[in-house]
Amino acid sequence: MTDVLPSWNEGQAKKAIIDFVASATQPGPGFVEPTDRIATFDYDGTLWCEKPSYVQADFFLRRMREMIEAKPELAKEQPFKAISENDEDFLGHLLEHAAELAKGVTEAYADITTDAFEQAVETFFASATHPTLGVPYTSVGYQPMRELVELLRAHGFTVYVCSGGGRDFVRVVSEQMFGILREHVIGSGTTLEYREGDVYRTKGVEEPFDEHGGKPVHIWTRTGRKPLFAAGNTNGDQAMLEVARFSLLVNHDDGEREFAYTELAENALAEAAKRGWVVVSMKDDWKSVFAEPGL
Amino acid sequence: MTDVLPSWNEGQAKKAIIDFVASATQPGPGFVEPTDRIATFDYDGTLWCEKPSYVQADFFLRRMREMIEAKPELAKEQPFKAISENDEDFLGHLLEHAAELAKGVTEAYADITTDAFEQAVETFFASATHPTLGVPYTSVGYQPMRELVELLRAHGFTVYVCSGGGRDFVRVVSEQMFGILREHVIGSGTTLEYREGDVYRTKGVEEPFDEHGGKPVHIWTRTGRKPLFAAGNTNGDQAMLEVARFSLLVNHDDGEREFAYTELAENALAEAAKRGWVVVSMKDDWKSVFAEPGL
Repeated sequence: MTDVLPSWNEGQAKKAIIDFVASATQPGPGFVEPTDRIATFDYDGTLWCEKPSYVQADFFLRRMREMIEAKPELAKEQPFKAISENDEDFLGHLLEHAAELAKGVTEAYADITTDAFEQAVETFFASATHPTLGVPYTSVGYQPMRELVELLRAHGFTVYVCSGGGRDFVRVVSEQMFGILREHVIGSGTTLEYREGDVYRTKGVEEPFDEHGGKPVHIWTRTGRKPLFAAGNTNGDQAMLEVARFSLLVNHDDGEREFAYTELAENALAEAAKRGWVVVSMKDDWKSVFAEPGL
Repeated sequence: MTDVLPSWNEGQAKKAIIDFVASATQPGPGFVEPTDRIATFDYDGTLWCEKPSYVQADFFLRRMREMIEAKPELAKEQPFKAISENDEDFLGHLLEHAAELAKGVTEAYADITTDAFEQAVETFFASATHPTLGVPYTSVGYQPMRELVELLRAHGFTVYVCSGGGRDFVRVVSEQMFGILREHVIGSGTTLEYREGDVYRTKGVEEPFDEHGGKPVHIWTRTGRKPLFAAGNTNGDQAMLEVARFSLLVNHDDGEREFAYTELAENALAEAAKRGWVVVSMKDDWKSVFAEPGL
């Protein structure tokens, strides 16, 4: 028989996934109708590398540096101040400065159409490379997760992204990286407004963020269902994993091939142990990490 | 050749629809990739009857009457005052009292789970009948529109509802009535919150409403695209029709078989004439209105 997850080592995680897919799709007590087979995947740290910093942070910081160049007085206020002073304490802990950062992020691409924003994202991906791996960001997706997405899809699941990061950012690359169409990308967003025949980004932030309790809320508004299968890697994914029937947590324990960290995942790891979620060890469960040869 | 729209009379509207579908799906300058074939349909007055009042109004008014019975002092304030006094001026012009009404509507089913709300909607549909047609509300869908939805789907379109009314209300009946799955229903909603493993309705209203400029905004957030084909019947659908390549406006001019009115559609009808949108005369373009025999 063909190995459906060739980049996964034999072990509990691989077995649990294959057993679950079989139980949900074959006649029996676990069977689920195809229309209810919804799988939701966090993006940063679950489908692609999120270290040393979020890909989206690189994108926005570049733009904010341009904004400061064009208008130096911006540097008097956060987050522009930290960016212009290269304040490592601020830039290394972006999530702790989320409120200040949001101001810069929403202003960075305000008052342009959603199409113009996508163009900016495409331009970024065409040239930006990962700072330590030295390859385009579109090459830092996890090969074992790509196989998992394909396995689910081959068994009638509809696979969604459910990202704490920007929905309209991820949409630009999700299809080429994972075959996930733009209508299946759930995520955070700025407020939008219709003007003169087109949709424009405005300076607010859609509530709730697609993080923590916002994830099951977004999944409901977008699909009208709870996820049958969910995968994440941090505390922000915990609520989504709580409402799924099968919950998977990626543990970043491979400092050799990727990055080893449990920061922002402490609660989720504790909860996984308590609730019996499948914890995937990147070190032990994955034969290879990236699709890119040699990475 | 089989008539793909058997309930439509031969005429400009039917011809325009068939020509458009051919141009978008056959090789040539109008060809559109299947993934971009998004069609969006308003619900009230476009897919089913919205007179003498919105189906959803019947649902909520019943609940608000129950609330007044349980707690009579509610009747001191709007919208409960108008309901308890059967104030025809207020109840006959609900959209003009939208702000007052919203308070009642959001409170009517607040603090229950989305599943419990669906249960309440199902209970309503199981017994409620249309006040003048005397049949279940699920029988007051338009047969010609059902055929149109099927025609589009057969040509690779993904068909969405885009309703000014409640997303979670329409979801309960859209699949049985039009084969439109719950994840393809876009609409207005109350705010939601995640608590203890489930998603609860709270007392706010999601901004923007899925009406006017909110329609293209919601279509973008949900699909990441503009509609290729859009159909509506009122001023509230105008923005959605403006961004579509093919735009169709249902004109309620059949007082014999349905209801004749242009109220709340005046601007849309004027715009249709100016922009060349296809205006469907229910009287002249439709052989039959409802699927229900004898209606």
